[in-house]
Amino acid sequence: MINIGLLGCGTVGSGVVKLLEQNGETILKKTGKEIRIKKILERDVEKCLELGFAENCITEDIKDIVDDPEIDIIVELLGGISPADEFIIEAMEKGKHVVTANKDLIAVKGQDIFDTAENQKVDFYFEASVAGGIPAVTPLKQSLAGNNIEEVIGILNGTTNYILTKMSREGQDFDDVLKEAQDLGYAEADPSSDVYGLDAARKIAILASIAFNSRVMLDDVYVEGITSINAVDMEYAKELGLEVKLLAIAKQEEGQIQVRVHPAFIPIEHPLASVNGVYNAVFIKGDAVGDIMHYGSGAGQMPTASAVVGDIIEIVRNKNYNSNARIGCTCYDQKPILNINQLEGQFYIRMAVKDRPGALAGIAGVFGNNNVSLSSVLQKTNDWDMAELILITHNTSEQNLRDALAVLKGMSIVGEINNVIRLEGMDKK
Amino acid sequence: MINIGLLGCGTVGSGVVKLLEQNGETILKKTGKEIRIKKILERDVEKCLELGFAENCITEDIKDIVDDPEIDIIVELLGGISPADEFIIEAMEKGKHVVTANKDLIAVKGQDIFDTAENQKVDFYFEASVAGGIPAVTPLKQSLAGNNIEEVIGILNGTTNYILTKMSREGQDFDDVLKEAQDLGYAEADPSSDVYGLDAARKIAILASIAFNSRVMLDDVYVEGITSINAVDMEYAKELGLEVKLLAIAKQEEGQIQVRVHPAFIPIEHPLASVNGVYNAVFIKGDAVGDIMHYGSGAGQMPTASAVVGDIIEIVRNKNYNSNARIGCTCYDQKPILNINQLEGQFYIRMAVKDRPGALAGIAGVFGNNNVSLSSVLQKTNDWDMAELILITHNTSEQNLRDALAVLKGMSIVGEINNVIRLEGMDKK
Ligand SMILES: NC(=O)c1ccc[n+]([C@@H]2O[C@H](COP(=O)([O-])OP(=O)(O)OC[C@H]3O[C@@H](n4cnc5c(N)ncnc54)[C@H](OP(=O)(O)O)[C@@H]3O)[C@@H](O)[C@H]2O)c1
Ligand SMILES: NC(=O)c1ccc[n+]([C@@H]2O[C@H](COP(=O)([O-])OP(=O)(O)OC[C@H]3O[C@@H](n4cnc5c(N)ncnc54)[C@H](OP(=O)(O)O)[C@@H]3O)[C@@H](O)[C@H]2O)c1
Repeated sequence: MINIGLLGCGTVGSGVVKLLEQNGETILKKTGKEIRIKKILERDVEKCLELGFAENCITEDIKDIVDDPEIDIIVELLGGISPADEFIIEAMEKGKHVVTANKDLIAVKGQDIFDTAENQKVDFYFEASVAGGIPAVTPLKQSLAGNNIEEVIGILNGTTNYILTKMSREGQDFDDVLKEAQDLGYAEADPSSDVYGLDAARKIAILASIAFNSRVMLDDVYVEGITSINAVDMEYAKELGLEVKLLAIAKQEEGQIQVRVHPAFIPIEHPLASVNGVYNAVFIKGDAVGDIMHYGSGAGQMPTASAVVGDIIEIVRNKNYNSNARIGCTCYDQKPILNINQLEGQFYIRMAVKDRPGALAGIAGVFGNNNVSLSSVLQKTNDWDMAELILITHNTSEQNLRDALAVLKGMSIVGEINNVIRLEGMDKK
Repeated sequence: MINIGLLGCGTVGSGVVKLLEQNGETILKKTGKEIRIKKILERDVEKCLELGFAENCITEDIKDIVDDPEIDIIVELLGGISPADEFIIEAMEKGKHVVTANKDLIAVKGQDIFDTAENQKVDFYFEASVAGGIPAVTPLKQSLAGNNIEEVIGILNGTTNYILTKMSREGQDFDDVLKEAQDLGYAEADPSSDVYGLDAARKIAILASIAFNSRVMLDDVYVEGITSINAVDMEYAKELGLEVKLLAIAKQEEGQIQVRVHPAFIPIEHPLASVNGVYNAVFIKGDAVGDIMHYGSGAGQMPTASAVVGDIIEIVRNKNYNSNARIGCTCYDQKPILNINQLEGQFYIRMAVKDRPGALAGIAGVFGNNNVSLSSVLQKTNDWDMAELILITHNTSEQNLRDALAVLKGMSIVGEINNVIRLEGMDKK
């Protein structure tokens, strides 16, 4: 018998309860052990009673759980950083293995927790913290472990992907779709951590740490959200054979790491371009395996519970062979993380320009002076006096682009620089 | 130091040699052990010398390898059933762990090998045997282990997917594209095991066994190849919003299993529909995780080596903790496998019919009499006297459809039944 202490019986917590019950028989065959939730830390006693737990299983005092010598595994599904972090560390210090779905925590306090797990020789599993039910952490640690991972690019936030998909398909503007998504329950009342890219940033910090064997923290991630994307850009993207996605990007080149979250145009031929609605995906490039992609539900009660229960099963298998901690922290190296200004890439620029002879030449000149070369220029005349220009650059440094834009902003023929959007995966076009 | 005995230094074998060398430094960090290929069984000594092996490492006698007490892991990359099966079993009996990429062997002799592994308490890993570098076996055994798996649908053969993609995009006929694929090295001189579906059948037998925890052998798989697909059907598929793929399908319903390989029309909205060219994918439906898909290179030297080396790393991690055999055979149950005639599905039927008054009513009557109801009928008049009919059925049993077709074949107004193609995943439309 394996005894679990469940911290938090909310959306995911109650999903775990249901799944362990629903598939208990086959899980017993796979592990040789009955798995029982012995105690639950939860403020809302009603919720637990409804799930069939006796009142004496439910507590608000963590001591009742971490001090129970019968409890083998702690499943932390409270969310937030504190007190989850203290609870986990306390539990590990008492020799308990830990499963969590808490990306906020790992992206900020990962190091402390891994150190404690290593010292205590306990398991720390967190597959559910990235991309919900999609196996993302485990393949990087195991099946793909023979590769030098060059890229991990994820669509890691279902809310923003739902919004962008809707905008792209129906030509609606951001605010309208967000409102709709909130009404449907796909976006939270306070959607800021989703739409400003913070949620995706936490997840890519975790994946980058594993992929590149070097700790990447939330603060290391350059983040831009999707609030500046609008229907006009979507329309032009389509004309250019591109799709817009909020990408979480981690790359490694010559021992240096870049990690960033921002909206990007990708060619419609790219496997990530057909990941629509609330679905998530993780695209990985390894030196041996080439391009692979894992696709599925990145959140939701049961998909997330699937990942949590997968982790529990692993820990039980480890316990059976006394091999807990067999895969611990994999951050052996300390690789430098590049600043966004040091990066190179292609850009889409939409700007309004006065329709004067020589205007285009003047603008092209500014780009040239700053070593930004243009791959294509599309002129659209909307207003009676203003032309809209769509420029696509060749590969150029972020710094050079910023310098060029600063000059352009000061020019009298330039009305407005409406949007600048990065291009990714153009080798797939 | 971990010593490997490599059996076969062909395409994949030499890929493994290269990968262990290329990423040896990080693999050492991940496992804490240096991994060395100590001996190679290979007829072609030249090949091994070129890779830098000393002559005394190369042998044609398996005894030199299995009797070497220093050798911990055997990596079998010979291919074929015999003598690979004897070599593997002999090695296990000497306490050695085994990694293989040999689907032919597992789909036929899986049971014997798993039994030996269990008795000997050694590891048997075979991630590379299905879908090359794409993690398929491991996620089913680990991350998704909490699910009751309802469906596994794969595009598991790159050659046929390349052919079908080309046919669909360029409207060419099967024979022409096959010839082209052979010239380009995407199809073998003898392409029969690919185009007749046998290769995919082996792989889906392996995945079904793991997904449903019940042994499925090659002979249990119903198999149809792609040779009857032609440009006309492709054209009509497009009109109907469908794409044709060679699917390897395993489903479980109420404790009963169905396993089959055949060409099928799927809606273009289905995630598998955008898997093109030589790429493979494994689509999985679990009761908790919902729909997920893994996509990537299903074959090739380095992608396959990636999976083999991932398995080697797992075995070394197990050795470090003395936990080999921690995940053995997962076929705990014996579930009945349904015959193809017991299955239900939707069908596309293309037939030539004499253009007579009442012809359509007569044909519809035959379907009705056999309990096959039609979802749509498209009439195309090509020849001066013959009309081409495209029929799509509602869900119906294979047996009823066969009965109806048998009657139709005998009718004087029916010129020819040109093709019958199954529809899959229509809930995604
Ligand atoms: N939901 C998803 O789809 C999803 C997907 C991936 C990962 N995750 C992660 O999974 C974790 C749980 O998410 P969730 O959606 O299940 O959240 P949730 O529904 O809010 O559940 C958390 C539960 O824990 C309780 N709780 C929090 N702090 C507590 C404390 N100190 N003492 C006692 N009870 C406490 C909460 O009670 P109150 O309601 O009274 O605060 C609530 O019942 C989070 O880390 C989240 O990021 C969620
Ligand atoms: N190639 C792929 O992309 C791929 C992908 C997934 C799985 N696999 C699987 O991986 C395995 C190896 O495939 P491969 O493509 O590497 O085949 P391969 O290139 O033909 O390599 C096999 C090697 O083993 C040697 N060999 C075979 N039997 C032998 C024996 N009894 N004694 C000594 N040497 C022997 C062969 O020598 P000779 O040439 O002299 O016979 C050849 O050098 C197969 O099971 C295959 O199904 C391959």
